[in-house]
Amino acid sequence: MKKETVEQYRAKALEYYEKAHIVLTDEEKANIEVADFGLNDIEKTGLQLVVYVNTDRVCAKEMVLLPHQTCPQHRHPPVNGTPGKEETFRCRWGKVYLYVEGEPTPHPACKPPEGSEAYYTVWHEIQLNPGEQYTLYPNTWHWFQAGEEGAVISEFSTHSTDENDIFYDPRIKRIPEIED
Amino acid sequence: MKKETVEQYRAKALEYYEKAHIVLTDEEKANIEVADFGLNDIEKTGLQLVVYVNTDRVCAKEMVLLPHQTCPQHRHPPVNGTPGKEETFRCRWGKVYLYVEGEPTPHPACKPPEGSEAYYTVWHEIQLNPGEQYTLYPNTWHWFQAGEEGAVISEFSTHSTDENDIFYDPRIKRIPEIED
Ligand SMILES: [Zn+2]
Ligand SMILES: [Zn+2]
Repeated sequence: MKKETVEQYRAKALEYYEKAHIVLTDEEKANIEVADFGLNDIEKTGLQLVVYVNTDRVCAKEMVLLPHQTCPQHRHPPVNGTPGKEETFRCRWGKVYLYVEGEPTPHPACKPPEGSEAYYTVWHEIQLNPGEQYTLYPNTWHWFQAGEEGAVISEFSTHSTDENDIFYDPRIKRIPEIED
Repeated sequence: MKKETVEQYRAKALEYYEKAHIVLTDEEKANIEVADFGLNDIEKTGLQLVVYVNTDRVCAKEMVLLPHQTCPQHRHPPVNGTPGKEETFRCRWGKVYLYVEGEPTPHPACKPPEGSEAYYTVWHEIQLNPGEQYTLYPNTWHWFQAGEEGAVISEFSTHSTDENDIFYDPRIKRIPEIED
């Protein structure tokens, strides 16, 4: 990802934090994390986020998904003798569709990003509107996509170690590589 | 606490969630927790909150303090072989003064609730404005009071077991007793 792409998506994310009335410090605004998952198609597969806190025991993040932007299918395996990351997603603004293991939903609202269909295999749909939330236990496959307006989503979880996340799509690199 | 007091303080808390643009479900609104800590003086010593999630590993709450309302001094001791509750407070709206162990602040902004002065012994002051946060490690004494406008504060923590909290003031009962 180019530095200017990161800056461009930081600016976009800020608009959504403002719509959701989420107050960030100047330092947080300047450091919004922009992830393209190494697929170089961030408008479709990507995520913007601020990590509020990430101690050995607790993590909290505020995430932005642009309209129809997708966080690709992944799971959080056991790490260092702990059961793996547990996540609660709470929609604050907009709408997000969360897909998890379980009975496939007959007519899901979302499609995977074009060209990546093979890497989306769980289809139990949970729709989250503002104030609605869902808790995901460790090591279960999941992915999520914003509705047409985008979404702002709080994540409350155990310790977060992105480098241990397992993505279904082997092309994905979670840790962004930023060029000048 | 009388049922009608609970309803009255639920309604007050709702005003603050609205000012902070925090979206709650109808069920959450109907069940806002109102705590008077058994002192029967909730305007001074009290707290209103919504528990979003509280699993074995992670807890998230959205708290409201009315103007100058105080959550009294307490600590979270080790429980069942875990190190005790770890808490991050993030101010979302208004202003909150947090007092923790450490160098006493020379001219603190807050006074303890009248008549309870003896039960407030830690005076290292941390002022939290919207977007500012502080992480408290287990078993350290702390208390907090809102500024003149009140405050809305997110808490991200490990598992919460109110019944294990240790309050400095022996008169306090954390679990509310509601009369008809
Ligand atoms: Zn996840
Ligand atoms: Zn506490």
